[in-house]
Amino acid sequence: MVHTGSCIASLIGQGGSRKYHLTWRWLRYFKNDRDRRDLITCGAAAGVAAAFRAPVGGVLFALEEAASWWRSALLWRTFFTTAVVAIVLRGFIQLCSTGTCGLFGQGGLIMYDISAANVVYSTPDILAVILLGVIGGILGSLYNYLVDKVLRTYSIINERGAAVKILLVIMISLLTSICSYGLPWLATCIPCPADASTSCPNTDVSGNYKSFQCPPGHYNDLASLFLNTNDDAIRNLLSTNTVKEFHISSLFIFFVAVYCLGIITYGIAIPSGLFIPVILAGSCYGRLVGRLFEPISKLDVGLFSLLGAASFLGGTMRMTVSLCVILLELTNDLLMLPLVMLVLLISKTMGDMFNKGVYDQIVKLKGLPYMEAHPEPYMKHLIARDVVTGPLITFSGVEKVGNILHSLKNTGHNGFPVIDEPPFSDAPELCGLVLRSKLLVLLKGKAFSKDRVLAGNKVLRKISELDFAKAGSGKGLKLEDLDIQEEEWDMYVDLHPIANTSPYTVVETMSLAKAAVLFRELGLRHMCVVPKSQERPPIVGILTRHDFQPEHILGLYPHI
Amino acid sequence: MVHTGSCIASLIGQGGSRKYHLTWRWLRYFKNDRDRRDLITCGAAAGVAAAFRAPVGGVLFALEEAASWWRSALLWRTFFTTAVVAIVLRGFIQLCSTGTCGLFGQGGLIMYDISAANVVYSTPDILAVILLGVIGGILGSLYNYLVDKVLRTYSIINERGAAVKILLVIMISLLTSICSYGLPWLATCIPCPADASTSCPNTDVSGNYKSFQCPPGHYNDLASLFLNTNDDAIRNLLSTNTVKEFHISSLFIFFVAVYCLGIITYGIAIPSGLFIPVILAGSCYGRLVGRLFEPISKLDVGLFSLLGAASFLGGTMRMTVSLCVILLELTNDLLMLPLVMLVLLISKTMGDMFNKGVYDQIVKLKGLPYMEAHPEPYMKHLIARDVVTGPLITFSGVEKVGNILHSLKNTGHNGFPVIDEPPFSDAPELCGLVLRSKLLVLLKGKAFSKDRVLAGNKVLRKISELDFAKAGSGKGLKLEDLDIQEEEWDMYVDLHPIANTSPYTVVETMSLAKAAVLFRELGLRHMCVVPKSQERPPIVGILTRHDFQPEHILGLYPHI
Repeated sequence: MVHTGSCIASLIGQGGSRKYHLTWRWLRYFKNDRDRRDLITCGAAAGVAAAFRAPVGGVLFALEEAASWWRSALLWRTFFTTAVVAIVLRGFIQLCSTGTCGLFGQGGLIMYDISAANVVYSTPDILAVILLGVIGGILGSLYNYLVDKVLRTYSIINERGAAVKILLVIMISLLTSICSYGLPWLATCIPCPADASTSCPNTDVSGNYKSFQCPPGHYNDLASLFLNTNDDAIRNLLSTNTVKEFHISSLFIFFVAVYCLGIITYGIAIPSGLFIPVILAGSCYGRLVGRLFEPISKLDVGLFSLLGAASFLGGTMRMTVSLCVILLELTNDLLMLPLVMLVLLISKTMGDMFNKGVYDQIVKLKGLPYMEAHPEPYMKHLIARDVVTGPLITFSGVEKVGNILHSLKNTGHNGFPVIDEPPFSDAPELCGLVLRSKLLVLLKGKAFSKDRVLAGNKVLRKISELDFAKAGSGKGLKLEDLDIQEEEWDMYVDLHPIANTSPYTVVETMSLAKAAVLFRELGLRHMCVVPKSQERPPIVGILTRHDFQPEHILGLYPHI
Repeated sequence: MVHTGSCIASLIGQGGSRKYHLTWRWLRYFKNDRDRRDLITCGAAAGVAAAFRAPVGGVLFALEEAASWWRSALLWRTFFTTAVVAIVLRGFIQLCSTGTCGLFGQGGLIMYDISAANVVYSTPDILAVILLGVIGGILGSLYNYLVDKVLRTYSIINERGAAVKILLVIMISLLTSICSYGLPWLATCIPCPADASTSCPNTDVSGNYKSFQCPPGHYNDLASLFLNTNDDAIRNLLSTNTVKEFHISSLFIFFVAVYCLGIITYGIAIPSGLFIPVILAGSCYGRLVGRLFEPISKLDVGLFSLLGAASFLGGTMRMTVSLCVILLELTNDLLMLPLVMLVLLISKTMGDMFNKGVYDQIVKLKGLPYMEAHPEPYMKHLIARDVVTGPLITFSGVEKVGNILHSLKNTGHNGFPVIDEPPFSDAPELCGLVLRSKLLVLLKGKAFSKDRVLAGNKVLRKISELDFAKAGSGKGLKLEDLDIQEEEWDMYVDLHPIANTSPYTVVETMSLAKAAVLFRELGLRHMCVVPKSQERPPIVGILTRHDFQPEHILGLYPHI
């Protein structure tokens, strides 16, 4: 759902889809970096809000996990988005209240309502909860470790082609089916409780107290977990006032199976997530711990189950406030808030001792140049100049077309500094920064001149402002689309009108840690490094996200 | 409570109080700008969390309203703080559950629980709710306008001395008492309902269905609101399934009285806040609207009351997510979330059309140089150099003691650029920035030399690192504390060891809007403006928060 929301938002951010005739003229105003990024953040928030019916949780998820460059305006936009989601959801739930929409609409706005539970706890419970948080954190970080290993294996397997991908999916599906149908045979039949809230035994598609192979008046507890939608399985695990419903052995089998299946399922070629498997495994783990502590504990096993889910989520995702609010909005039990907060903090702390959160790991695995919020400690011992590498390619304020084409063709750089030289200035000075995409649009406009003169805004005469709008992914103007004649190579073009004349700069002797903070906090893509002393060329180099990556820096300075 | 929390945090951030022998040695690690600011943010969050028993709401309040420089580490720290608050609160509530702590402990973790209400609404309700949001936003911004006017008047009155202050307090108290005791006489007695949840009529200190002047079996509805703690009055207004409990006329009288009393009470010399008066007025307004829409509405008047409180809070405070979560944690009614979100968005939007949020107004009134998150539009037409004013005072890398003392005495500047000049460098270049507080510590150490030579870290020999720790408010070293002899005025001191050699700099031609973003996003105090061309002195000026204030810029460029 998070993915879907972000995809739709991204589509809007690139002006809709021309291929499917889904474009509107007014969408062009969003065709820029900032609006597209904001839209995608709102899309992710909307996804969480819709998936868990948790509008405030969605906002906080976007804030804590999705957005790395947060502005106050974004808070209010994501809030608006999720408010719309909540109202639409509420409308559909009301429309579907007659039961005509299948499983949708069941449970109302609160998916796993446990607000009816009587929340009582004392000192032994708090100790049990702390232990639960510690073990949950360790199991969560083990989950991350294994998911990482499995994903690396799968990415090698998946590269072998579509047939192998499908084969992998079939194998995992078979294994899941075997577990789901085979393992319930291990459980013994349990007599139905007299005060069961739903019919027992049950032969519906989903629900509680599954009959399976049991005689009338009995149910199979493992089947009630395995042969169910994940939603219903979680609901059964969270059910309160039903201490004896699940045997300890059944809970243990289900926990191990779900934990392992969750790890090997993520990364195969089907749309699958992490939240629901982790909640499922966690709530089973929590209920198991609850059963073990039953003799000394006053807290209901259903509430232990909620705390188990919290500890697993904290141990894998490493979020705090957003998970807390999502769990609150899922279960509607405000009285559990202090304990949920405690468990989340403990399990996050435990997990952080071993490895990073699962999303950070995946970003790293994909090779995306993600910048951490904090600079690494070794950055304090370096200065900005130390990590500038590669030949610096600069353009003159009025540059030969041939030079520009040559540079665009032979480098992959996206930003080029523009230097003003005599006669346009007294001494060489940094005029600004031009982007590859804008250069391509300018060259396509062909406002060239024979002589090296300032043309000013005349060069933009044939170009509309909208040509500079950010194109959809992979749809921008390419170098091959240009049709520059041989004789035009020696002509000149004025770069001043398209240069960003206020690029953010740092002095070469600036501490790298401080430069990284500047780069990250302002959400930059290029940062110019300028010389300290005055007798040097006006620019030392350009820093991009790649230059701040640990791999790059530790490659240059292995012993730091 | 927010104030108290912040004060305690600030005290910890300055190492405790030596006067009251409340110091610990380990507190010295917090004696720096960043930790003190983080601590105060956590203190504010703890205050909200404790006042409303809303731990998540406290975190979000700190994020949305208190902190202007947010880091991800802060999220997790405030969350930890409010988790501790929640656990301590829970402990005290359990301790006090026997009723030995007065009114504390009543209501448990949820102060105004309305989760029992049956939330049903349809299209006419939504229209009513939108209207409620619109009018609530207008009334909220009117509240802000009047509070601002009253505060300006009071600040003039309060300047006249303690006697006048006390007289003002006495007058407002008298007026409040007259209203509280006088206005209930206007109400007629109402027969007690048969199904009253509490005893009716009631003669306790607080509660519902106050007897007042009524015969047995009757209650006075206005007295039930006026002669009560604010908490109980809000609880009575939010009570559901009691449509006829309050007459429309009584609600109207109470609303007008509370609205006016709230405005004139804020700013007198007593500790009073804005949240509770606004919730009280808002919930009364909401219930009034609910009564008016009763014939066409399915929504309970108690829930209208909650929406009224939301609309007033949105209209005065202009927060979104945090108010939403605080209201959720106050009332424990997750099903109302879509409507609460809708009302908050509408009333905030309406309010923003007229004026700023009440806290922004107060910050402005106090004359604090607060920087808005967004640069003003006119800043795009200016460059950084345009707003640099005043004579620039710079020091040499190795400077005469006399010059430093002269500059410290004759200016109020807190940051001074240090320029390296020949023979210490080939050409004059910016070495860094020294702070007044560090200069004072250095001068106190008296590591002076007769000749102009680099002394290096030798100058720090007599100074411990802790001397540089940030002192408590108004407790730092002062110029008068120094005891520099006449003959030492002509000696030299090396400023390199105490200079920040990586100050953030901008080029003088940088757009002022971009400079403002840099300044604000990084939470700076000083920013060096460096020249663009190379034949000029290495620094043009220093920008501080004051230079970005609209008053300063519009004073320099009135016609922009």
